[in-house]
Amino acid sequence: MSSKTPKDTHVVMSELVLPNDTNTLGNLMGGRLMHYMDIAAAIASQKHCNCPVVTASVDNVSFNNPIKLGNLLTIEAKLTRAFNTSMEVYLRVWGEDLSAQYKYLSNHAYMTFVALDPNGRPRKVPEIVPETDEEIKMYEGALRRRQVRLILGGKMKPEDAGELRALFVKD
Amino acid sequence: MSSKTPKDTHVVMSELVLPNDTNTLGNLMGGRLMHYMDIAAAIASQKHCNCPVVTASVDNVSFNNPIKLGNLLTIEAKLTRAFNTSMEVYLRVWGEDLSAQYKYLSNHAYMTFVALDPNGRPRKVPEIVPETDEEIKMYEGALRRRQVRLILGGKMKPEDAGELRALFVKD
Amino acid sequence: MSSKTPKDTHVVMSELVLPNDTNTLGNLMGGRLMHYMDIAAAIASQKHCNCPVVTASVDNVSFNNPIKLGNLLTIEAKLTRAFNTSMEVYLRVWGEDLSAQYKYLSNHAYMTFVALDPNGRPRKVPEIVPETDEEIKMYEGALRRRQVRLILGGKMKPEDAGELRALFVKD
Amino acid sequence: MSSKTPKDTHVVMSELVLPNDTNTLGNLMGGRLMHYMDIAAAIASQKHCNCPVVTASVDNVSFNNPIKLGNLLTIEAKLTRAFNTSMEVYLRVWGEDLSAQYKYLSNHAYMTFVALDPNGRPRKVPEIVPETDEEIKMYEGALRRRQVRLILGGKMKPEDAGELRALFVKD
Amino acid sequence: MSSKTPKDTHVVMSELVLPNDTNTLGNLMGGRLMHYMDIAAAIASQKHCNCPVVTASVDNVSFNNPIKLGNLLTIEAKLTRAFNTSMEVYLRVWGEDLSAQYKYLSNHAYMTFVALDPNGRPRKVPEIVPETDEEIKMYEGALRRRQVRLILGGKMKPEDAGELRALFVKD
Amino acid sequence: MSSKTPKDTHVVMSELVLPNDTNTLGNLMGGRLMHYMDIAAAIASQKHCNCPVVTASVDNVSFNNPIKLGNLLTIEAKLTRAFNTSMEVYLRVWGEDLSAQYKYLSNHAYMTFVALDPNGRPRKVPEIVPETDEEIKMYEGALRRRQVRLILGGKMKPEDAGELRALFVKD
Repeated sequence: MSSKTPKDTHVVMSELVLPNDTNTLGNLMGGRLMHYMDIAAAIASQKHCNCPVVTASVDNVSFNNPIKLGNLLTIEAKLTRAFNTSMEVYLRVWGEDLSAQYKYLSNHAYMTFVALDPNGRPRKVPEIVPETDEEIKMYEGALRRRQVRLILGGKMKPEDAGELRALFVKD
Repeated sequence: MSSKTPKDTHVVMSELVLPNDTNTLGNLMGGRLMHYMDIAAAIASQKHCNCPVVTASVDNVSFNNPIKLGNLLTIEAKLTRAFNTSMEVYLRVWGEDLSAQYKYLSNHAYMTFVALDPNGRPRKVPEIVPETDEEIKMYEGALRRRQVRLILGGKMKPEDAGELRALFVKD
Repeated sequence: MSSKTPKDTHVVMSELVLPNDTNTLGNLMGGRLMHYMDIAAAIASQKHCNCPVVTASVDNVSFNNPIKLGNLLTIEAKLTRAFNTSMEVYLRVWGEDLSAQYKYLSNHAYMTFVALDPNGRPRKVPEIVPETDEEIKMYEGALRRRQVRLILGGKMKPEDAGELRALFVKD
Repeated sequence: MSSKTPKDTHVVMSELVLPNDTNTLGNLMGGRLMHYMDIAAAIASQKHCNCPVVTASVDNVSFNNPIKLGNLLTIEAKLTRAFNTSMEVYLRVWGEDLSAQYKYLSNHAYMTFVALDPNGRPRKVPEIVPETDEEIKMYEGALRRRQVRLILGGKMKPEDAGELRALFVKD
Repeated sequence: MSSKTPKDTHVVMSELVLPNDTNTLGNLMGGRLMHYMDIAAAIASQKHCNCPVVTASVDNVSFNNPIKLGNLLTIEAKLTRAFNTSMEVYLRVWGEDLSAQYKYLSNHAYMTFVALDPNGRPRKVPEIVPETDEEIKMYEGALRRRQVRLILGGKMKPEDAGELRALFVKD
Repeated sequence: MSSKTPKDTHVVMSELVLPNDTNTLGNLMGGRLMHYMDIAAAIASQKHCNCPVVTASVDNVSFNNPIKLGNLLTIEAKLTRAFNTSMEVYLRVWGEDLSAQYKYLSNHAYMTFVALDPNGRPRKVPEIVPETDEEIKMYEGALRRRQVRLILGGKMKPEDAGELRALFVKD
């Protein structure tokens, strides 16, 4: 199992926002967007582990700019770090009004996937080696985000979350 | 604008997991589930504010038990607290194998929605008055979760998040 | 095979009416509604027999109040009676304009399902014991509705339908 | 408004049964079939009245032969009779295993549609003149089926349904 | 393997154009139409070979008249000629505004399908015997269209395409 | 209206092949692929003209390698040349089995779109300036392909198609 780079896992997804994807005000519904993001992130994960994957968690997502009916939706996904059997994916989402030539960042998010063997049990994934400065920074932040997830999921006590605690307590 | 209770906003959604909702291992895809959860939570929000709403954020979601093809998916959604123009919704999701009579909690989550006026701008929502002990506890926790959201969204400094800081620092 | 109660089979389904569900006047199409009703009733049946089921028949359905685009659709389904291998389900359907706080009964219907073994052949289902007055009344009416179905389906002669005949002939 | 013939309203719809249309046993779900039938019948009605229509009622439908995944679904729809503002449509549904060269009648049904003016209110429809023997027989039976609908829908008393009563009582 | 006639393979498909099928100007999207055409042509092919088929190629398609939201889409498909393991299908597509009683030819096309055995490998198909003058003309033109396909697909040299060359060079 | 380059119009679309997209042998249906290709090409066209577009024609497409259920589908689209009111787009389609790390070219195609003004009438589009050798070659070939389209569509006589004639006749 040779290591890979974030670039190896890069995915671009382009979609047009259709009527059934929108609420009565003509904005892309948040859940429909999460659906697209999940597929993009699953592809990025599969590019890394070359096996089936299952969504393990979605980090806090803020929907800042609604995407309008008929607009272009672009999602970019890329692995930030691989743990033992799980992988963290970073996603950025843009909307674009092609007639008005107006492109805007809609939101960004982290999702985590678990690699599965053919029996549906977790399996080890290759390591990932970040290359650019941004990738290195995301690789390092992945530990802290993992602690947030474990605490919020009730699987770690706040006092054991050294990385996260440092945010609040300057000893 | 008279106040309401969490019970007034209670929504139950039942769905069968169909082939197109699943990955190659026959598990409901996380994004498809987020889509259903978003609709259930949007309905709960609309029951409270009686106006169109838009998804503002989704808190950390952990997918603990995958839901299988053909299983029954049940989502319950209920408002926990109303802020000025936004509403926090709590969701619980169960899978159920009806033939095996096996029902399991799949995950739970908090989502936030913003109420909109007919021009798509945020508008005030009624207050909510929790009734049961569980509702009161959720109502009180809503402030802390809001601080997590603002910090994770880069809109609040950790040192200003008194509720959250208390988790890490016992002064 | 222990008996069950109608309450054990109770299902609530909530859906938002989306653009693709509507005709050019913005009303939920009847067939799309039947699709949702069929899934709700199939879930109720599976809750009773704990096995796969197949739709056997749909009784006369009148669509009295059209449900509008963006409205909330709520379907409640509950078993009325179990026969040897088949089950009768009663459904009530409401539309609701959440902004106008206007809820209306759209229609109600009876559907019949057959329980299947793993080879797709009919199998016996448990008995059902009605509890409330309304449930008892529906349980008793199920025989008469079954005769209507058999006559309309050409499987019973009118003169053999004692229950039904009594509607027309006061001997 | 010149009269038309049943032939003018004839519609044929052909579909392949796809995975999402089927239950876990690989049979076309009854509700999905009702959805297709509703669209076919709506087209037949629109061919007659040349205006938008809305489903008013579906008569008893028995699903005799389940249609399998991958099979061809063929629906034929044709008006039997036009009343003041409503139209009765007769549908026949076949399944066909094209590899096995096996075609089977799955079910047949009557649906009723109401013609609408641009404001969504019922409007008068043209008369229909049956031509073949089968069309004449269906035209005549339409009155009796209408009485069944009105009685079952609680809009007519059994003793006023002369056509229907004759089935039970040989005076 | 007895021969068949084009009539044996005739398919009619009727669909209503729904919101999700259209672009922001309310016209049926070309790709959605191609999707319907592909299914209609696949059915026609399966009627001929009575086995699974796979799309081999689509000839040049010009979309002359856009089909509007809410209009009726009618597709007719019929085999023109069977080669060794492949079949050419001719399709005609109409739009129809049922309220305005305006029917228009939208486009026509040729698609080619390959018959497959249960292992997914090409298998021989029966011969087809054209009956009407139009069918005979199409049968004869199939060879020339096949040469165009092979040349455009880079599988035949222009100088070997005798039928096609004759269009350009009057020797 | 300043000119653009093919690179300005480049679109990448990534999709997972889901059950409903496949035929009974588990291969992506040709029409479903055409649907995705049409959306990718429409986005590329809109990036060029910044206005709504409609599919004008699809050139011959050969489906060489079927794409399997669960595989990754990647479509790249880029403008080759802009005419007065129309634009030619070149598409390449890959399938990829991510578990087997096997990526294969499935097919490639040319599609043509017409730019529309808000009333749905054709409008002028900017010029395009090819940059790379491959882009220049495609830009030059666009005239010849246009002649093929016009001849095949019956809008040009073969003897007027100088570019195309040269393929067959070495004067």
